[in-house]
Amino acid sequence: MQVTVLAGGIGAARFLRGLVSATGSTHDKPSVTVIGNTGDDIRLFGLQICPDLDSVMYTLGGGADEERGWGRANESFTVLEELRGYGAKPDWFGLGDRDIATHLVRTQALDAGYRLSTVTAGLCERWQLPVSLIPMTDDRVETHVVIDDPDTGQPAAIHFQEWWVRHRAAVAAREFVYVGSDTASPAPGVLEAITTADVIVLPPSNPVVSIAPILSIPGIRDAISQAAAAVVGVSPIVGGKPVRGMADACLSAIDVDTTSAAVAQHYGPRPEGGLLDAWIVDLADADAAPAIADLGIRVEAMDTIFSNPGVASNVAASALKIGSELRR
Amino acid sequence: MQVTVLAGGIGAARFLRGLVSATGSTHDKPSVTVIGNTGDDIRLFGLQICPDLDSVMYTLGGGADEERGWGRANESFTVLEELRGYGAKPDWFGLGDRDIATHLVRTQALDAGYRLSTVTAGLCERWQLPVSLIPMTDDRVETHVVIDDPDTGQPAAIHFQEWWVRHRAAVAAREFVYVGSDTASPAPGVLEAITTADVIVLPPSNPVVSIAPILSIPGIRDAISQAAAAVVGVSPIVGGKPVRGMADACLSAIDVDTTSAAVAQHYGPRPEGGLLDAWIVDLADADAAPAIADLGIRVEAMDTIFSNPGVASNVAASALKIGSELRR
Repeated sequence: MQVTVLAGGIGAARFLRGLVSATGSTHDKPSVTVIGNTGDDIRLFGLQICPDLDSVMYTLGGGADEERGWGRANESFTVLEELRGYGAKPDWFGLGDRDIATHLVRTQALDAGYRLSTVTAGLCERWQLPVSLIPMTDDRVETHVVIDDPDTGQPAAIHFQEWWVRHRAAVAAREFVYVGSDTASPAPGVLEAITTADVIVLPPSNPVVSIAPILSIPGIRDAISQAAAAVVGVSPIVGGKPVRGMADACLSAIDVDTTSAAVAQHYGPRPEGGLLDAWIVDLADADAAPAIADLGIRVEAMDTIFSNPGVASNVAASALKIGSELRR
Repeated sequence: MQVTVLAGGIGAARFLRGLVSATGSTHDKPSVTVIGNTGDDIRLFGLQICPDLDSVMYTLGGGADEERGWGRANESFTVLEELRGYGAKPDWFGLGDRDIATHLVRTQALDAGYRLSTVTAGLCERWQLPVSLIPMTDDRVETHVVIDDPDTGQPAAIHFQEWWVRHRAAVAAREFVYVGSDTASPAPGVLEAITTADVIVLPPSNPVVSIAPILSIPGIRDAISQAAAAVVGVSPIVGGKPVRGMADACLSAIDVDTTSAAVAQHYGPRPEGGLLDAWIVDLADADAAPAIADLGIRVEAMDTIFSNPGVASNVAASALKIGSELRR
């Protein structure tokens, strides 16, 4: 069974760990293809940083810091300390020493002319990743956030990372713009992975800044609409709050309530041109099930808080089961 | 008194520490200008590395590892360990985490279009360097070494760092080529520093791979020939051996014996188109003084082993005194 997943960062990565376990996907014979969001990518200190791709790579490769939720385990921050010694800007982005090595290898290869998808495959080789990880595009696409500039009061667009990391999403977002997406193309393998999938999964990633940038690449949304596989989503919202991250600040910018039902409605039922065949919500949201079912989306309530790897495996197994049943 | 020094790496840097002490040069009012060799520069892992400029900067800035003789004090090597985890090549060059921050700041600024001299001044600002440090050129000039390729037996040119660090200078050098020097220009301030100097000093740097690349930049040798200031050199050879480094392997390639007298003859007396007005040799080479004097070069023998900062100050003070006496 081939499974294709549209993935953001750590939430997706933890779901993917369960999916790898549920499918038995291996490095030599990957049955899971991950289409990773690159809208968060940013070049800082001359380094091309791909936070979501790396969260997936480090987590599935066994190199992630589980507690911090980003970056490498056993990490040190000596380079960053020295960069600050030089007064290098920005001073709000965290970069560990081990992480920097990844960015150096990536940046050198990109600057030599290799495509991001090729470079990502090369990096993943070291980690013997048990999935195939493909960036959504090899083109430069950056999620920018339109805010009201605190100094001028005028609308201003800033890079997603500046909004997310520097401002902790505390400055109201008016709009999210996926700069460059209109002329971008899906990376090699992306459309094929969607077309040939047996199940397509939207893991519990941020709908606005993780999934939407992927869908903004021309061709990807259409391919999902037309795919033979069913699309099963896992709600990133539990009990009216994001499981992690600040999805509420993103959803409010697009006038979507922070509830699992509202996100399901935002994605929409597939028969009516939406994305979802099924939606897995947490037990805490079981009472929202009838409303979601009324939308024409099959709904299942279960424990979705990945407090241990077994929970993620259970959710992944359910997604596969539902997806198989709903395949067209 | 304004002093201009042509400098290689750590040998020069230790002499310069004495010179700073002898002149009272300060960051706010530098009376010492250092023209640094950049022939050793190399781009590795996408980072522009300037070993000689950094040796001077770290040593005079108080950030050098005194025992290792290169790089930063309190250094760690986490990034390098990770680069090796990715199989990144080359695997023979040492790069510390603190050092990498310097290269990141430099590379980012260079890639943004700033000149090396401007970038170097910016880096030195952090260290409050008590001298003015200028690269010999803003253009790309690289010292390459012609060797007999061990595999093919044919002559092959390799980067100086590959010869020096990887091969430990143990593969016989046929020739040194300063690639790019013919079309390079002195960096802003270089010729002025030579023209307006009260004393010009050649510190105990490698004549072939530290001083010669500087002299290979069109205009620099002529400016020194015509300068009003006297040129005082300090021999890097003591008792028939380099004080540090592998200068013997370099000198033999240009058919110069590894003796302080032979190096003096190689530089030549200034009245006859050479470089030296005076040559300071170690006490161990006092018996070579008459032969050097016969060349038309004033010679002085003294302790030149920089076992403590006082020795370097003494040598620097002597160079200044001799230089003042010999000024045209």
